[in-house]
Amino acid sequence: QMPRGNLETIHHRALVLAQLRKWLDSLRFRDAFEVMRKQRINLNLIYDHNPKVFLENVEMFLNQVDSINHINLFLTELRDEDTTKTMYPCPSTCTPPSAPGVTGKKVDIVCDALRATMECLNPDRYCLCILTTHVKKTVPELETALQKVHQLRVNTPSSSEAVKAEEALKYLLFLVDVNDLYTHSLGTYDFTLVLMVAEKSQKDPKEYLPFLNMLKTLELNYQRYTIDKHLKRYSKALQHLSKCGDEYFSEVLNLVKDQQLYREALSLYPTDSSQYKELSAAYAEHLVERSQAEMAGLLLWRCGELARALQAFVGGASWRHALSVAMQMPLPPDQLALLARDLADKLLEQRRYTEASVLLEQYAKDCEEAISALITGAAWEEALRLVHLYNRQDIIETNLKPALLEAYTTQVSFLESQKALFSRHQTRLAVVREEKEKARQEMLDEGDCGDVELYSEASSVMSGSHVGSRYTHSNSRISARSSKNRRKAEGKKFSLKEGSPFEETALLHALTHITHTVDKMREEIQGLLKALVLFQYDDQAGTLQRNYSQLLTLMESNIPLIWIPNNTQTLVTGPTSTANSITASFQQQRVPPTAQQDTEAFTPPKMRTSVKWKLCVLD
Amino acid sequence: QMPRGNLETIHHRALVLAQLRKWLDSLRFRDAFEVMRKQRINLNLIYDHNPKVFLENVEMFLNQVDSINHINLFLTELRDEDTTKTMYPCPSTCTPPSAPGVTGKKVDIVCDALRATMECLNPDRYCLCILTTHVKKTVPELETALQKVHQLRVNTPSSSEAVKAEEALKYLLFLVDVNDLYTHSLGTYDFTLVLMVAEKSQKDPKEYLPFLNMLKTLELNYQRYTIDKHLKRYSKALQHLSKCGDEYFSEVLNLVKDQQLYREALSLYPTDSSQYKELSAAYAEHLVERSQAEMAGLLLWRCGELARALQAFVGGASWRHALSVAMQMPLPPDQLALLARDLADKLLEQRRYTEASVLLEQYAKDCEEAISALITGAAWEEALRLVHLYNRQDIIETNLKPALLEAYTTQVSFLESQKALFSRHQTRLAVVREEKEKARQEMLDEGDCGDVELYSEASSVMSGSHVGSRYTHSNSRISARSSKNRRKAEGKKFSLKEGSPFEETALLHALTHITHTVDKMREEIQGLLKALVLFQYDDQAGTLQRNYSQLLTLMESNIPLIWIPNNTQTLVTGPTSTANSITASFQQQRVPPTAQQDTEAFTPPKMRTSVKWKLCVLD
Repeated sequence: QMPRGNLETIHHRALVLAQLRKWLDSLRFRDAFEVMRKQRINLNLIYDHNPKVFLENVEMFLNQVDSINHINLFLTELRDEDTTKTMYPCPSTCTPPSAPGVTGKKVDIVCDALRATMECLNPDRYCLCILTTHVKKTVPELETALQKVHQLRVNTPSSSEAVKAEEALKYLLFLVDVNDLYTHSLGTYDFTLVLMVAEKSQKDPKEYLPFLNMLKTLELNYQRYTIDKHLKRYSKALQHLSKCGDEYFSEVLNLVKDQQLYREALSLYPTDSSQYKELSAAYAEHLVERSQAEMAGLLLWRCGELARALQAFVGGASWRHALSVAMQMPLPPDQLALLARDLADKLLEQRRYTEASVLLEQYAKDCEEAISALITGAAWEEALRLVHLYNRQDIIETNLKPALLEAYTTQVSFLESQKALFSRHQTRLAVVREEKEKARQEMLDEGDCGDVELYSEASSVMSGSHVGSRYTHSNSRISARSSKNRRKAEGKKFSLKEGSPFEETALLHALTHITHTVDKMREEIQGLLKALVLFQYDDQAGTLQRNYSQLLTLMESNIPLIWIPNNTQTLVTGPTSTANSITASFQQQRVPPTAQQDTEAFTPPKMRTSVKWKLCVLD
Repeated sequence: QMPRGNLETIHHRALVLAQLRKWLDSLRFRDAFEVMRKQRINLNLIYDHNPKVFLENVEMFLNQVDSINHINLFLTELRDEDTTKTMYPCPSTCTPPSAPGVTGKKVDIVCDALRATMECLNPDRYCLCILTTHVKKTVPELETALQKVHQLRVNTPSSSEAVKAEEALKYLLFLVDVNDLYTHSLGTYDFTLVLMVAEKSQKDPKEYLPFLNMLKTLELNYQRYTIDKHLKRYSKALQHLSKCGDEYFSEVLNLVKDQQLYREALSLYPTDSSQYKELSAAYAEHLVERSQAEMAGLLLWRCGELARALQAFVGGASWRHALSVAMQMPLPPDQLALLARDLADKLLEQRRYTEASVLLEQYAKDCEEAISALITGAAWEEALRLVHLYNRQDIIETNLKPALLEAYTTQVSFLESQKALFSRHQTRLAVVREEKEKARQEMLDEGDCGDVELYSEASSVMSGSHVGSRYTHSNSRISARSSKNRRKAEGKKFSLKEGSPFEETALLHALTHITHTVDKMREEIQGLLKALVLFQYDDQAGTLQRNYSQLLTLMESNIPLIWIPNNTQTLVTGPTSTANSITASFQQQRVPPTAQQDTEAFTPPKMRTSVKWKLCVLD
């Protein structure tokens, strides 16, 4: 071939590509292939030009190209890249082929399609190409390829076109790293294949022969297990080892623990076997270490390890399961009571008062403690139920009523504090917004002297709430920041310190939080009100209902003042406005879109006005 | 006085007002008053010009004006209106006085301030003015005024300046309607006063004398009750009637029922009295009629009406209270069991399975039914607890396991249906949005030919999602619509019919709903997974976990595609853009601000990603 100048190459190529497209459209694969090979055009284009047509005409492609070497060339050059989009984009005049209906990795699709056709046409003749299709897959199918070579050796095909095993192996070694191939040959557990590869690999026989000989002495399953382990295929290793008999179970257990193959191991043994139990216990131990005590308990319970299951459930505070197991064992009554008290203490610590009361009542048989737990948890109705169930009306005077009055005092002062906080934040918010508006007006008054970007930048620094636009406009700066810095900045957003650049957002967050906290109290307040009325504390109930109602109304009526809907601000078009001033005023109106959290702060909290909590007798 | 021409009046007034302001500023009230009276300038200005200064110098005002008639003139002309803002706005050159520190109704403030000063200075002399201040208050204090007149009659003041009772009454009748005055005189329960007014009123004695004579024969409290009732002052009537003794209690009860004065009535009797009980019962009856059975029960219970309280609690499905009362009565065991079953049935109907199980277990003593309720409610842990508590392991095989497998099948197919619905809506949303974008592009391409309003109108009709702007721009149309029509329009927003103008909103609503429904299932699915694992249904558990996890991931990853953040759309400023095109493009970007519901639809649903539900043993 003659050396080519740049000019020739470039101009020529555009013309060549146009010609190639025509040929490919008319299925003249051979002509296309020849030209592409000579002009060093990436062969992927044959497929990429129109994947659907290619896949429908694989046989024609093979017949036209008609050379093992050329087919292999095509196969080895395959890449998961659409050359019509990267190297050879279609000029705008030619319409690109409609989106292909094929999904999956391109290389795998082409390899599988070609192999299927070649195996149909003439597996002997296309032998080497078939091997290439196995090797080129995204996950190379080296073992299948090796198996095919082995087949050639065992049953040498009679056909004259057939390739010899020797030759095929040589070809494989040319395509694949020798160590990879050796490893995979081991993985077939076929020693003839291993030796075949090893011999061709120019490896030192002193290196591999002793290992192979040792393997040959082992029992079949243990042999395969040893190979799998050698190849770090632990799942397969486990499967083979599990077939070696009970005497190897301790080795199984070690492998399972080392490689955390608990789930696979459990599926290999019948659920009623002792091995299943031992594996479950090991798994449970592992889960407890990972703070999954409840899961551990479930595994132990289902294989009948009751004592250990109980321990796990207690550890995980799964009190229902713990007591189920305790009853199943069964635990002696005194120990059961102790267990119940122990668990109840844990639940009380977690403020799960109603659950604790069930334990104390039904298992520790201590109704007094159970009622006390319910009173502490403000579960007034349930407390009363137990009071009457156990005929302990005395507790009403000694515990229930004082607790009710205390709850009343606590709630009233809590509501007061929330109200004060809400008003303080709202007042401060007005100040912050006024300052921002002042800054904005000054900016607008200055008119066209600065461009929009400058404007929004300055405004965001002053107001702090429109820092979003800073991110949007100067991408170079944001990309320079590390994500750590960004996290730091987000943390600052919540600073309520006066003058903090994120103060508006922080105030909105705080106001949302207070609103939700107070709004969530509807059910709790109603429960308390009912209990107060029941015990003739009408005055206190009246005060509480009034205060809570006032606070809710205050919040509800202030929400539209704090979270101003977008459309209240008027448009600023008019004779004196410019494109920039319009843009700027719109930017002011828009919610700063930085992060999800910001959008949240600028969304008004929703109150559960549908939850009716007032008592009509107090209105 | 000479007749005045228009010109003179108008020009003169501006000058006069300027002069008046100067006089008022230098506290020359008399000069100001004289001129205002002559020029017919509203006297309110004296106060309005500077409320603070006036209130601080009331005494000086009184001394300067120094005429009972003039003071009365000033008082009767008082109105709750700031004349400096309405009739006599301050010209822009003079700075308006800073906002007054006084809150409350202006008329009341001025009346109270003047009266206080006059009563200090010379109550006898200012007598008629003082009466005027009472009458002029927002809620006229006619009784106080009448009492003062009565005082004049009883203790005729010696002072020569003093006004006679006769004269004062005449003045009152001049200020107030005679029937009003008669009514209020009756309300003082003072018959001399009543007669005094009646005589002056030119009423026919035949009209009022028989009634007054009848009243005089009554016992004091009953007399007052009769008067109060006559005047429709039912609260006072109740108070007086309650003092008349037990024989009148049936009348009390009737009054209470007629006027629904239950709360007032209860506060008039000691809580341990029989009347309190009867009133409570009446109140309870009333509450039951208003579907407030639980409240009724509380009132009956607290006054010891156990049987009726029980009935009310059963009616209100307040099962805890019902059983508390039943235990307190106490109900015989067989009836208690019946009651428990009855209530349990109600709770089961309301899908409150766990509560029903407590009733069945603890009161009906039917553990089998209790466990069955828990299984129906998918409360697997609690069901197991009772199974073991009552040593009924047989139920595991007969009921629990089949229910578990059924729950598995139901959930898997439910998740599948939700997934299909989600994808269908999302696909349709893309189509709707594409059409909208096409319409928008066509609009923008047409350039400046239409004004913004026309543009946004057309676009909203086409896309249906920006109907918000239609409301914003043409207020005349919206105000013409009745609120009923608006409600109708909002209902349409949720129509998922293809091509409906509100389809985008409807689709977003539906997608939000599906997301919330699926996201809410985390706890439920976890509970089912644990139970499945416990009974060795690992395969089913694995499938369910995989399906649910995939669905959650699908939703999470599609949320940013469905609810597109504002900032992804680029600005459309540039050489070819106009003010209108910029405005229009911003309007496209903005969330349509019509109603709260719309904003909701355009806010991405928040998933509870912090709720961990997966079982690690299935991963």
